Amino acid sequence: MTIRTLVWGENIHERINEVVRAVYPDGMHTAIAGALNSRDGIRAETATLQEPEHGLTAERLAATDVLIWWGHKDHGAVDDAIVERVVRRVHEGMGLIVLHSGHFAKIFKRLMGTPCALKWREAGERERIWTVNPGHPIAQGIPENFVLENEEMYGEFFSVPEPLETVFISWFSGGEVFRSGLTWRRGAGNIFYFRPGHETYPTYHNETVQTIIANAVRWAYRPGPAFTALHDAPNVPVDKALEPITERGPKLHQAGEEGYK
Amino acid sequence: MTIRTLVWGENIHERINEVVRAVYPDGMHTAIAGALNSRDGIRAETATLQEPEHGLTAERLAATDVLIWWGHKDHGAVDDAIVERVVRRVHEGMGLIVLHSGHFAKIFKRLMGTPCALKWREAGERERIWTVNPGHPIAQGIPENFVLENEEMYGEFFSVPEPLETVFISWFSGGEVFRSGLTWRRGAGNIFYFRPGHETYPTYHNETVQTIIANAVRWAYRPGPAFTALHDAPNVPVDKALEPITERGPKLHQAGEEGYK
Amino acid sequence: MTIRTLVWGENIHERINEVVRAVYPDGMHTAIAGALNSRDGIRAETATLQEPEHGLTAERLAATDVLIWWGHKDHGAVDDAIVERVVRRVHEGMGLIVLHSGHFAKIFKRLMGTPCALKWREAGERERIWTVNPGHPIAQGIPENFVLENEEMYGEFFSVPEPLETVFISWFSGGEVFRSGLTWRRGAGNIFYFRPGHETYPTYHNETVQTIIANAVRWAYRPGPAFTALHDAPNVPVDKALEPITERGPKLHQAGEEGYK
Amino acid sequence: MTIRTLVWGENIHERINEVVRAVYPDGMHTAIAGALNSRDGIRAETATLQEPEHGLTAERLAATDVLIWWGHKDHGAVDDAIVERVVRRVHEGMGLIVLHSGHFAKIFKRLMGTPCALKWREAGERERIWTVNPGHPIAQGIPENFVLENEEMYGEFFSVPEPLETVFISWFSGGEVFRSGLTWRRGAGNIFYFRPGHETYPTYHNETVQTIIANAVRWAYRPGPAFTALHDAPNVPVDKALEPITERGPKLHQAGEEGYK
Repeated sequence: MTIRTLVWGENIHERINEVVRAVYPDGMHTAIAGALNSRDGIRAETATLQEPEHGLTAERLAATDVLIWWGHKDHGAVDDAIVERVVRRVHEGMGLIVLHSGHFAKIFKRLMGTPCALKWREAGERERIWTVNPGHPIAQGIPENFVLENEEMYGEFFSVPEPLETVFISWFSGGEVFRSGLTWRRGAGNIFYFRPGHETYPTYHNETVQTIIANAVRWAYRPGPAFTALHDAPNVPVDKALEPITERGPKLHQAGEEGYK
Repeated sequence: MTIRTLVWGENIHERINEVVRAVYPDGMHTAIAGALNSRDGIRAETATLQEPEHGLTAERLAATDVLIWWGHKDHGAVDDAIVERVVRRVHEGMGLIVLHSGHFAKIFKRLMGTPCALKWREAGERERIWTVNPGHPIAQGIPENFVLENEEMYGEFFSVPEPLETVFISWFSGGEVFRSGLTWRRGAGNIFYFRPGHETYPTYHNETVQTIIANAVRWAYRPGPAFTALHDAPNVPVDKALEPITERGPKLHQAGEEGYK
Repeated sequence: MTIRTLVWGENIHERINEVVRAVYPDGMHTAIAGALNSRDGIRAETATLQEPEHGLTAERLAATDVLIWWGHKDHGAVDDAIVERVVRRVHEGMGLIVLHSGHFAKIFKRLMGTPCALKWREAGERERIWTVNPGHPIAQGIPENFVLENEEMYGEFFSVPEPLETVFISWFSGGEVFRSGLTWRRGAGNIFYFRPGHETYPTYHNETVQTIIANAVRWAYRPGPAFTALHDAPNVPVDKALEPITERGPKLHQAGEEGYK
Repeated sequence: MTIRTLVWGENIHERINEVVRAVYPDGMHTAIAGALNSRDGIRAETATLQEPEHGLTAERLAATDVLIWWGHKDHGAVDDAIVERVVRRVHEGMGLIVLHSGHFAKIFKRLMGTPCALKWREAGERERIWTVNPGHPIAQGIPENFVLENEEMYGEFFSVPEPLETVFISWFSGGEVFRSGLTWRRGAGNIFYFRPGHETYPTYHNETVQTIIANAVRWAYRPGPAFTALHDAPNVPVDKALEPITERGPKLHQAGEEGYK
């Protein structure tokens, strides 16, 4: 079994900003994919905003088990039709890992149903990440805490829905805390948000960060065929009822009629 | 303290369908509001699809603590701008109770981030509703089970996010089950979905159903000012940090700059 | 409606330690109860370890809506029979608020089913408490963060079950974080754990802390009769089945027999 | 990787009751273990109440990744010291799958912290099990519903804590519903309760039931060393603080002192 992983990168700052290019000369998506490809059971490719259909054709998504998303500077440039296509695949069971500034990505806001806002400060301060759920598969092999010496601060309130589970919480030098690793399921798709990864710092070269992302890929992976049935709202006719029943009372719908949507 | 409740009704079948008009001669919204007004501490008004701005002006929503939503035949007729207005108020702390076929309402799908689909059958069969969370405020005074002799069947899989809590589960004669009472919070807003209420049956005249809806109004009510801060993603400047820190490392943003959205 | 609240204090350090006595001359329980009695709708009394049956007779618990628990030095002195009595009342719907070092109280470990362990340091360091769930009733009127200038540090991993909701998270000067406000329900009883309150600091004189505890009392309160049915595992005879069924297949039990426990 | 699974059986009715022996001539534990051993990646052994230390020595538990528990007639015969030993291993990360009447097992009640009671009827009635969480790993390959033609009824209210997720819900001919597949984590240990399996019916010979149990074994498995740290409540001395701090304020504890428990 190999988990077909697609790392999507906005790929803007790597091209226009010297600092970012120095840290990620081949792009952040390439760095993340490279780290994943060094792990057993994961085969990672990349896609970027600039490719046709942002590299997210229906065919490609159908062949993707887990999608990783990093964007920051131009969330608005992602085409709404492609957003719906990605969301639909998540509902059908594709895993989704949203990184750092992807909290404001259209796909994430669409799946959460909330603003996904937070406080921020770009001061290169220390972030200390605590494991608060050591039994969770995503925390496997992760120490009880680890440090990213320079990171952007994200502070609460992070306006996302209460997660299934909180896996990591960050401490920042400047006095803030942040729920840095959160899980949800939407339809049949597993979703993990992971906070670190400001583009001016070498966060995705950190081995612990790489392990967390690889763990998240394995956790988010759902084998088996796409769960397409969840898009339907099928009428179950009386004569097909699982237990024999007799129709009673007044009706709105004619036999065989579609429901309202 | 009086909870300002607004009962929104699509108000179509009551006007065009004889059967529905016979059950709810003044409209379903009026029946629901009337039942609520007989309870202490709740003052309910109504709004309908046909009113200007569907009766959901910014002023009116600002003066609403809890919104109740029933729609079925024409979810598509609800204006997208008003959907966003309602969603925004929920995020800011307005409670929301979605009834029956409102599972496909735009506002509900928008807040859930999922298809919200289910199976259905209109056969007037028996629904038996079980309380599976007797300590929940919405279950207060509700028996361990009660019967609606004629209801439309809704069956799983109900494609909504895992709730904060499951309060009621329905048993149907035809062999299906359904999670009939579910809670979530989105932003500062409490949300309750309650299954029963097909328009051809007298469900909203049932006293237990009325008690559940009144309990849900009280549970969903959040006192205090609107929590508008959750729309913002404020930069916290280094010199305003709660703990003294020194700026370090490379930067993307200039001082005072807005973040990307 | 008045919420009958009982504040239980271990009442040891207040009597034997000069520092603690100086901060809480009448005992911590008395300070907490006094603060609650100044709030509308709450009537608080106290009980201590040293009273007969620790002040927790069956009659008294039956007349208690919400129990608040502070203990630290001698958790082992609480009689096991009284622990079971308290736990039973929580299952039946009495609210429970466990403060600070009460994380190791027998009643809390018994209700959680986990070790409830954590890291700690008594250095009078700064604790900054962040509201991560501003829509929760317990967070009503609480600022987005507030400071306790001198507190004992508690650090993760806090080995409790994943909560229903995380309401507060603490930041400590020494680099730790802690989930400081957590909710659960056990049976029909609402449970809130709130971290601050080391006995050598004036934490319970802090008005924000007092508001949180009062909010928690209101949240934990469950009106209505005790839910005693949850102790039973009743046999439902075939001839009393809600839907008519015919007995089939082999049996272990004779009609009217009790189940195994 | 092979998941070392131990199937624990009470092994009473198989020996003293003709009906049960006819269905499970080698014992229920043997039937369950046999079905698991036919699956890839699982190696299942058995243990029974009658063995020394109930077959649950410290050595054996240390070499067990996932424990499956079936008991009914004599929960009280399980030694309390061994209950604590099992609970401790679950906290450290051993998976636990509790079947059917195991809802009243000492280990389950101890881990849940609640009565774990329910309604029941032994009438060989039809149970229809619905998948309400098709994206969950335990539901992989399970149809949207399946039937056990003869089963004991279990009815709500099932007094367990709100689960992390509800995976299956049962419909019974006699009118009851039951949350039949529920997940929790306690410490680092994953727990799954699965309802079916009355000993007079051939439930564990059902292939779908076997697949669910095998899925649950894979889901509950936590690789890596036992998480023994959660039993400790370590003091973090000031001079070992992660961030430099200065000790302030009054103290209860002397340097190097153990905390109270």
